Amino acid sequence: MGKSRRKKRESLPFGTLVPVGEKPGVEQVLISNISYTPGFYNENCDVDANNLAKEITDDKFHWININSLYDVELLKKVGKHFGLHNLLLEDIQQTEHIPKYEEFEKHLFITLKMISVNDQEKIEFEQVAVVLGKNYVISFQEAPGDFFDPVRKRLLDATAQVRSKGSDFLFFRLIDVVVDNYFVVLEHSADQLENLETKTLNDNEENNLREILNVKKDLIYLRKSVFPLREALSKLSKTESDLIQDNNLKYLSDIYDHTIHVIQSIETYRDLVSSLMDLHLSSISYRMNVVMKVLTIISTIFIPLTFLAGVYGMNFKYFPELQWQYAYPTFWGICIVLFIAMMFYFKKKKWL
Amino acid sequence: MGKSRRKKRESLPFGTLVPVGEKPGVEQVLISNISYTPGFYNENCDVDANNLAKEITDDKFHWININSLYDVELLKKVGKHFGLHNLLLEDIQQTEHIPKYEEFEKHLFITLKMISVNDQEKIEFEQVAVVLGKNYVISFQEAPGDFFDPVRKRLLDATAQVRSKGSDFLFFRLIDVVVDNYFVVLEHSADQLENLETKTLNDNEENNLREILNVKKDLIYLRKSVFPLREALSKLSKTESDLIQDNNLKYLSDIYDHTIHVIQSIETYRDLVSSLMDLHLSSISYRMNVVMKVLTIISTIFIPLTFLAGVYGMNFKYFPELQWQYAYPTFWGICIVLFIAMMFYFKKKKWL
Amino acid sequence: MGKSRRKKRESLPFGTLVPVGEKPGVEQVLISNISYTPGFYNENCDVDANNLAKEITDDKFHWININSLYDVELLKKVGKHFGLHNLLLEDIQQTEHIPKYEEFEKHLFITLKMISVNDQEKIEFEQVAVVLGKNYVISFQEAPGDFFDPVRKRLLDATAQVRSKGSDFLFFRLIDVVVDNYFVVLEHSADQLENLETKTLNDNEENNLREILNVKKDLIYLRKSVFPLREALSKLSKTESDLIQDNNLKYLSDIYDHTIHVIQSIETYRDLVSSLMDLHLSSISYRMNVVMKVLTIISTIFIPLTFLAGVYGMNFKYFPELQWQYAYPTFWGICIVLFIAMMFYFKKKKWL
Amino acid sequence: MGKSRRKKRESLPFGTLVPVGEKPGVEQVLISNISYTPGFYNENCDVDANNLAKEITDDKFHWININSLYDVELLKKVGKHFGLHNLLLEDIQQTEHIPKYEEFEKHLFITLKMISVNDQEKIEFEQVAVVLGKNYVISFQEAPGDFFDPVRKRLLDATAQVRSKGSDFLFFRLIDVVVDNYFVVLEHSADQLENLETKTLNDNEENNLREILNVKKDLIYLRKSVFPLREALSKLSKTESDLIQDNNLKYLSDIYDHTIHVIQSIETYRDLVSSLMDLHLSSISYRMNVVMKVLTIISTIFIPLTFLAGVYGMNFKYFPELQWQYAYPTFWGICIVLFIAMMFYFKKKKWL
Amino acid sequence: MGKSRRKKRESLPFGTLVPVGEKPGVEQVLISNISYTPGFYNENCDVDANNLAKEITDDKFHWININSLYDVELLKKVGKHFGLHNLLLEDIQQTEHIPKYEEFEKHLFITLKMISVNDQEKIEFEQVAVVLGKNYVISFQEAPGDFFDPVRKRLLDATAQVRSKGSDFLFFRLIDVVVDNYFVVLEHSADQLENLETKTLNDNEENNLREILNVKKDLIYLRKSVFPLREALSKLSKTESDLIQDNNLKYLSDIYDHTIHVIQSIETYRDLVSSLMDLHLSSISYRMNVVMKVLTIISTIFIPLTFLAGVYGMNFKYFPELQWQYAYPTFWGICIVLFIAMMFYFKKKKWL
Repeated sequence: MGKSRRKKRESLPFGTLVPVGEKPGVEQVLISNISYTPGFYNENCDVDANNLAKEITDDKFHWININSLYDVELLKKVGKHFGLHNLLLEDIQQTEHIPKYEEFEKHLFITLKMISVNDQEKIEFEQVAVVLGKNYVISFQEAPGDFFDPVRKRLLDATAQVRSKGSDFLFFRLIDVVVDNYFVVLEHSADQLENLETKTLNDNEENNLREILNVKKDLIYLRKSVFPLREALSKLSKTESDLIQDNNLKYLSDIYDHTIHVIQSIETYRDLVSSLMDLHLSSISYRMNVVMKVLTIISTIFIPLTFLAGVYGMNFKYFPELQWQYAYPTFWGICIVLFIAMMFYFKKKKWL
Repeated sequence: MGKSRRKKRESLPFGTLVPVGEKPGVEQVLISNISYTPGFYNENCDVDANNLAKEITDDKFHWININSLYDVELLKKVGKHFGLHNLLLEDIQQTEHIPKYEEFEKHLFITLKMISVNDQEKIEFEQVAVVLGKNYVISFQEAPGDFFDPVRKRLLDATAQVRSKGSDFLFFRLIDVVVDNYFVVLEHSADQLENLETKTLNDNEENNLREILNVKKDLIYLRKSVFPLREALSKLSKTESDLIQDNNLKYLSDIYDHTIHVIQSIETYRDLVSSLMDLHLSSISYRMNVVMKVLTIISTIFIPLTFLAGVYGMNFKYFPELQWQYAYPTFWGICIVLFIAMMFYFKKKKWL
Repeated sequence: MGKSRRKKRESLPFGTLVPVGEKPGVEQVLISNISYTPGFYNENCDVDANNLAKEITDDKFHWININSLYDVELLKKVGKHFGLHNLLLEDIQQTEHIPKYEEFEKHLFITLKMISVNDQEKIEFEQVAVVLGKNYVISFQEAPGDFFDPVRKRLLDATAQVRSKGSDFLFFRLIDVVVDNYFVVLEHSADQLENLETKTLNDNEENNLREILNVKKDLIYLRKSVFPLREALSKLSKTESDLIQDNNLKYLSDIYDHTIHVIQSIETYRDLVSSLMDLHLSSISYRMNVVMKVLTIISTIFIPLTFLAGVYGMNFKYFPELQWQYAYPTFWGICIVLFIAMMFYFKKKKWL
Repeated sequence: MGKSRRKKRESLPFGTLVPVGEKPGVEQVLISNISYTPGFYNENCDVDANNLAKEITDDKFHWININSLYDVELLKKVGKHFGLHNLLLEDIQQTEHIPKYEEFEKHLFITLKMISVNDQEKIEFEQVAVVLGKNYVISFQEAPGDFFDPVRKRLLDATAQVRSKGSDFLFFRLIDVVVDNYFVVLEHSADQLENLETKTLNDNEENNLREILNVKKDLIYLRKSVFPLREALSKLSKTESDLIQDNNLKYLSDIYDHTIHVIQSIETYRDLVSSLMDLHLSSISYRMNVVMKVLTIISTIFIPLTFLAGVYGMNFKYFPELQWQYAYPTFWGICIVLFIAMMFYFKKKKWL
Repeated sequence: MGKSRRKKRESLPFGTLVPVGEKPGVEQVLISNISYTPGFYNENCDVDANNLAKEITDDKFHWININSLYDVELLKKVGKHFGLHNLLLEDIQQTEHIPKYEEFEKHLFITLKMISVNDQEKIEFEQVAVVLGKNYVISFQEAPGDFFDPVRKRLLDATAQVRSKGSDFLFFRLIDVVVDNYFVVLEHSADQLENLETKTLNDNEENNLREILNVKKDLIYLRKSVFPLREALSKLSKTESDLIQDNNLKYLSDIYDHTIHVIQSIETYRDLVSSLMDLHLSSISYRMNVVMKVLTIISTIFIPLTFLAGVYGMNFKYFPELQWQYAYPTFWGICIVLFIAMMFYFKKKKWL
């Protein structure tokens, strides 16, 4: 969860804003606004923060998306135009914070984690904040991205539910997109676990353990990101704000169920990881056992025989056996008998 | 839980339907309808989705069973006829979802897992959804199966409770059949555990561990399927819907108690699995100990003796003992004394 | 918990009765009835199920005890006479079910586990069901037994509380007898744990582990039997039924406290078992360490010396030392010096 | 927790009293009574149970302390005089029971564990019961002791709060004394843990484990004694009895906070014990590793060299090297080169 | 948590004060007072406890900071002037106590732990108590420190929120400063964990374990300090005291969220520590495996060969092979063949 990204926090007064993330390029779109009604659709991809008053009108629904948290001035302008509380603005910027839901006089506010698997098969976390106002939704992304494209596409379709069901429906839909993505990440972990199980059953390389522990770590961070979301959604579903229409609450309850499902799956996968760890550790012990048995069998057979050979290698002057004609074949006879007896013994002990 | 079955989910709008499961054969019955009153019984095994209006009448109870979730058009027709909410239809299709209960204006809706042991002694999960309407129950199965046959048989019997107690009783009875089957699966796990315990006490093959971990995995998935059911049933029992008659709630409470029992048993078996794991790991350690003792005993006895034999195999020119007449028997004497002393020592240390 | 006893359950309709347990002998008492008032006592040891109407009168208190769940007809007769709900009768027969409390219109009903230590020092579980009616208590035992004898004896005593305090007091007293017996079983486990600790400290035989795991298993099953009882008693204590007199609730609260005590003790003993497991496993590791040290000390001392002896056993023609007069005593000198140095080294490393 | 002390319990009727603990000596004070008002103080160290009516007057506060639970007759007399419920008397005698709080019509009743460290550094548990009546407090100790001396001393001081604040304040103060003592016991465990950590870091004697497990056991029993106290105090703080004055509740809340603190510390120490266990087990593994490395290094160096020496000790008639003049120094050369190569290899593998 | 600092507690009466911490130097500032209104600011760095009446006026806000808990007389004077309850004063002094919140008639009172990383990279805990009165905040520090400097600086700024929002805002701000510091400490632990993971992957020195366990210990103590704070803040947020203005509660809720975040992070890091432990232990096992394989390979190859060499070193008189001309090269041939066969075998077993 980007521990390296986190900067030394000093204790700043409540509501202080500082630049977050990388400075965006000059060309980069910072604010986009989609205005829509059931019969109208317009997308303005590059909104000037000073022009917000002209962009946002009471007779349409608006979805304002902000792509960077770096430009503090821009945030302040947006905040001022929509009357956002300064604590709300601070929360948007605390990209390390766990998901939370807060209700303000004129806004509902939720932050949550967009989780995705990147090209190096690593799990990445990005903070997203969504604010619901009277006839608008504002979404804040830590970095530009195309997570919300499915919603954008649906908005183009004049017959889609999202066009006619008000801004609270859009608000829920944006949360839904984020939660739906968790399933993709979970599947990734499930696949990794399946591969690791096969690998652990076949060899006992140390690497397996590291990979197992990496999956475990992913699940730990996933859990940290999804657990508080349940709490947040539960608070949201109990809201008495009139920004939410009652007949849209069903959709929230659907998202809530998905979150519960994600949490249950994380717990299940954690259990599987610990099974895998057991398997790995027991494999190591088992193979050690095999190694030790080989050593013991070889030693137990040859050490006494070597002793015997040593005995007849002694140079005593008075050594009756040495003169005996059949001593040498007898020696081999004893060796073979001992060898067979040992093999028998090991067979009986199930060491072979 | 069929991780391989799961397809890459894109974030679809709320209530979107996609084909699920395998395409059913042309011959396969898709919809069956049993109409009954205390004095009437009729089973139509192959209902045409377009004919539902004619099939379903207000003066009878109906149990409509749908055998496949593949045909989206059919689901839409059924949904439209009964006025099912589009979120409800989506939930029926999410066969990976954990059990849930939801209340709609005119319907109560529950999904749960049918769990069974297949011929390869593997545990299989199948999603079942049951919808309760005014005078009908609709059950959706992921794949055709005969789970519900005991209920079908009872319905044939004009004196059976199920014929006279209304559709909510049938609704409970269908849930009950599913929950009752959990006991069969639990018994299967219990039997496996008992076998594994005997095996673990007798040998320490690596396979035992894999089998123990397989039982553990079964229990993990069982738990994931049954835990949320408790929550769902608890919500159902608190319903204020007038689709449920008060004097039938006793039967729900009975199912709820069975679910609690299943959950308790799963927890108990998980404890037993972990005991078994301890036994297995400790067995490995113990046998390693035995192996090491054998090695150590053999080495401790013969290594010093071999050294002694080596000494008298040296070719020094001035080597008084070599000339001594009783050197050889003395050598054996020393060997035997050392041997006996060692055995004594090991006996005292309880290594033998 | 009698996994072997359990029969394959088919999903039967609610309230179906099947023979449970062994068929009782012809001579065996099935139903006994004790009728009492403060001034009256009569025990009928062999009641005919058809005569119940004559036996049970409104002006006396009755304690009916039924000794077998095998005779389904008898159960039905009893059920019919007292107006027991068919779900209640089914619950009485589900001897594998965890403890539960249920309230019916005219009856309070509780099932719990009688737990005892048999002659082979094994823990045995038997289901007991107790029903409280207006002026009677009915107890159902899975098999004939003398658990309830203390209560029987008290009832003979005209001055005993139980004679004057109504049937709810008797109901509580029967539950109390069962709970009191849990302490005896707990003591048995405590004694076993103490013995095992002594044994584990003295030797590391594999048997210890099996015995430890057996105690753990006992505790797992105990827990499964007692945990749900807390819930049941808690529900019972919140009843608003007028079958319970308010001034007798104190006695219920006493039983509840005992149950909490039993649960706490089970948890404590589970912790002790896990400590014992740690001790056992660490003992094995420790002894392995001792074994390995012996092997290493012997090997480290003698392997280099054996090499040296081997060197001087070589048959090179040009081998100056062999001719040297003091070669042999020098060889021994080197051996002794090496030996002492090694011992010193091991002493310093605390291996000796 | 005195498992050996516990006697075989038969199921006795509610409220039966049996002698508990050792029979007190003839000389021993059994009942003492301190009577006080803000302006009056009198201590009667040896009260006759038959004289209670004379001792206890309505115009003074009284603290009656009873030193033994052996004399059943005495308990009955005391119980009768103060009108104590028979269940209350039974609870006083159940010295094995976990802490509990109970409210009776005219009395508040709490039992808790006095915990102390004895001279052999073992933790001892003693049951204390305190009863609060209208103007008196009765304390029951399992055995005579001086735990309550601090309170006795304060009562001598006419200006002390305890003299003027009523009997509920004294009731709280007695509980406070017991809870305060838990901190001394906790400190003892903390000291032991610190010592054990140092010892575990320095050697790996098996004794350490036993001592660690003893501390763990202490904590397990402590927990069992303190956990239920929280519940009891919480119930007490919610009492609506008018035996408690509202402005004294602050003192109870203080005791409650201390109890929470004790519980948190026990949990913390349990975590530390498990860390210590990990350290111990890992130490054993680590040292085993060291031992094995020594064995392997010695074996790996000398076994091949011994083989080489063995080769040149063979007695083949046609053995060219034996005749070679520089064979012997060459042999040593090879040995030294091999030795150095091995050392290098082990260095690289970080075994040295 | 300064176990060594803790002194033997005797059970003192409620509200007794004893000197805590080190005696402050003569020069040291003990009490400072900042008086402010939106338009006024004055700092008196060295207030005489006898002059408080003159310092504290009703028309200004005051922040009194007390730097030492050693001077009992001073605490009593302060307590008397502000009318602090004696239990409150006692709680201020119990520097070992876990965080708590208490409400008094005229004051709100919270104690919490200031946690910091000192120069030796150790985590230090210091108790802080903050009291909120009508128009003043009093903060008590265990030892002089500059934790609160950020607040001091803000107060100098006439435009800062803290100047205009009343003393409850200052109260929250002081708590906020303490909680914000927890993130710094958490980061320290996160950095340590990252370093340790790298180190554990590269070598298996015993030191790693000690360092891992040290981090674990830090987290255990952190948890003990932060967990109860959540409870305290939750109680504070439910207060009905009119010392808190409703529109400032948002700031409290912000602190509460941060606390939850800290707790979640502690749990996450604990999981990571346990993963690291697993990695460490498995590393040890793995390396042991490697060591054992080397030993076994060397032994398995050379022990049989040494036996063979021993055989031909025997001095039997009748020993046909010795005379054979190609015996010696044949011997080497056999050795090489055996060697290659062994290597092949080990390759197949994946030991090489």
